Amino acid sequence: MPVLIAGTVALDDLKTPFGEKKGVLGGSAVHGSVAASFFSPVSLLSIVGKDFPKKHIDFLRSRNIDTRGLKITDGKTFHWEGFYEYDMNQAHTKRTDLNVLLEFDPELPPEYRDSKYVFLANVDPDIQLKMLSQLGSPELVVADTMNYWIENRNKALKELIGRVDVMLLNDMEARELTGNPNLISAAAEILKLGVKYVIIKKGEHGALLFSKQSHFSAPSYPQDKLTDPTGAGDSFAGGFIGYLARSGDLSERNIKKAVIIGSVMASFNVEDFSLDALRRLKHEDIKKRFEMIRTFSRFEALSQDCF
Amino acid sequence: MPVLIAGTVALDDLKTPFGEKKGVLGGSAVHGSVAASFFSPVSLLSIVGKDFPKKHIDFLRSRNIDTRGLKITDGKTFHWEGFYEYDMNQAHTKRTDLNVLLEFDPELPPEYRDSKYVFLANVDPDIQLKMLSQLGSPELVVADTMNYWIENRNKALKELIGRVDVMLLNDMEARELTGNPNLISAAAEILKLGVKYVIIKKGEHGALLFSKQSHFSAPSYPQDKLTDPTGAGDSFAGGFIGYLARSGDLSERNIKKAVIIGSVMASFNVEDFSLDALRRLKHEDIKKRFEMIRTFSRFEALSQDCF
Repeated sequence: MPVLIAGTVALDDLKTPFGEKKGVLGGSAVHGSVAASFFSPVSLLSIVGKDFPKKHIDFLRSRNIDTRGLKITDGKTFHWEGFYEYDMNQAHTKRTDLNVLLEFDPELPPEYRDSKYVFLANVDPDIQLKMLSQLGSPELVVADTMNYWIENRNKALKELIGRVDVMLLNDMEARELTGNPNLISAAAEILKLGVKYVIIKKGEHGALLFSKQSHFSAPSYPQDKLTDPTGAGDSFAGGFIGYLARSGDLSERNIKKAVIIGSVMASFNVEDFSLDALRRLKHEDIKKRFEMIRTFSRFEALSQDCF
Repeated sequence: MPVLIAGTVALDDLKTPFGEKKGVLGGSAVHGSVAASFFSPVSLLSIVGKDFPKKHIDFLRSRNIDTRGLKITDGKTFHWEGFYEYDMNQAHTKRTDLNVLLEFDPELPPEYRDSKYVFLANVDPDIQLKMLSQLGSPELVVADTMNYWIENRNKALKELIGRVDVMLLNDMEARELTGNPNLISAAAEILKLGVKYVIIKKGEHGALLFSKQSHFSAPSYPQDKLTDPTGAGDSFAGGFIGYLARSGDLSERNIKKAVIIGSVMASFNVEDFSLDALRRLKHEDIKKRFEMIRTFSRFEALSQDCF
């Protein structure tokens, strides 16, 4: 079951305490698609300029990512320049050149319209809503966003949240969206907008999954190698939806496992710059890390005699 | 098996977004002792002034806390005045009057010297070391500290860490002590000082337990009622050591459960001002919350066919 992933394709300039890279492959749809491709074929929807290196397209195709929805147009590819200090939870943007992204007015190719699993990565929520309206009858739509849209497209974003199945936010975004500093009550408020599941990503502290009926607290992998956090949230989302598409099982039981798979994919993504860690990744590594997280977080029931 | 708990007894002035209290019972040894008292008798070691209300001593005694080690001396009880803004992970101190605490030169009463389970709550590490040297052959010594001692008694603190079994730190303290922003590598460095277990408390994000051989990631209780975080770390420590003393089982398996018990006690402690939530607490509530955390964090193994 292919997953439709719509978002940005970028050439990034990155600087972290561990090094510096210029013009490397990035973008929300790229990190998402490559992570999802470990589980499921992917249909990519995005736009690049004529400067976009052919080798990157070859790489995406080699990962079973359909690039028919990747429009190549005159102009330059979206470019993000950012840096991280020792607190790598916080990205600092030096420069954003939207370039061809300004023309990203996504017309879904006919062969994408019947997609059943869809990840709308972080773009203007008006564009996310437009993509949503072109879809036939998706079974699972996951959306991501960022603080800029909370501040500048609040109404459209709230409409979007009411129309998707799973909304991804990081902890700061959940607090900002609701004005509520407590993540548990913030999630309850977001659920009221109509979404089935809210996932609050907490970086090194794991992730929380909420539905109206339930709560799941997913531990993080104890990350000792953190080189470049760029794309962590997107690789989380890609792993999450790729795994669900692969298994075709949308029970809450399985959605919990998908949250862990998302954490695992993010934990690999951040170990090296750009997509480099995912390029080397093997299925066996994913299984092993999933099982490690299970071991790290397991504890037994109390015995009867504890008071 | 009684637990020896040494630390401060205080009268606190507190202000949080949910209200304001003046002159209420507090202090690290009080929050720790009351939490521990749900599992085990406690021997309290501290000092107060003649102004310390008798009703507080009666309350402590009613909880099976031995107050023979609570010295009552001329002068005023230790007084802390602080406030919290909406980010309640961060306490802001307005005023600290050490008062009688300046004379806290703890001579262990003879009947305390054979204590097997000991919690050295946050005081000057030189005092913690002095208490340690008076103990016979304790089975488990747990110590806590704060940023002030990291900055001003670094050498004594590192010596202490090498001589206790379990060191408690919050995430900021672990980073500050090691100069390492990554909690996983920070914990590895702290273990090199000679301590058997390091517990890094992450407030709303749960806690991490490290030994040289293993890692445990304890989820937090999804706290929707947070009134006053004062004493959260101490009630964590009290629950942790009280449960271990009660069960007499220091296997790693049981230490993981003790971390969850600690989180449960902290989660109740913060629901109301001072000790008010613990005053109302029933054993049944503790068991129920422990089991809730188990449910919230449980997920199954992957099936064979996930790629």
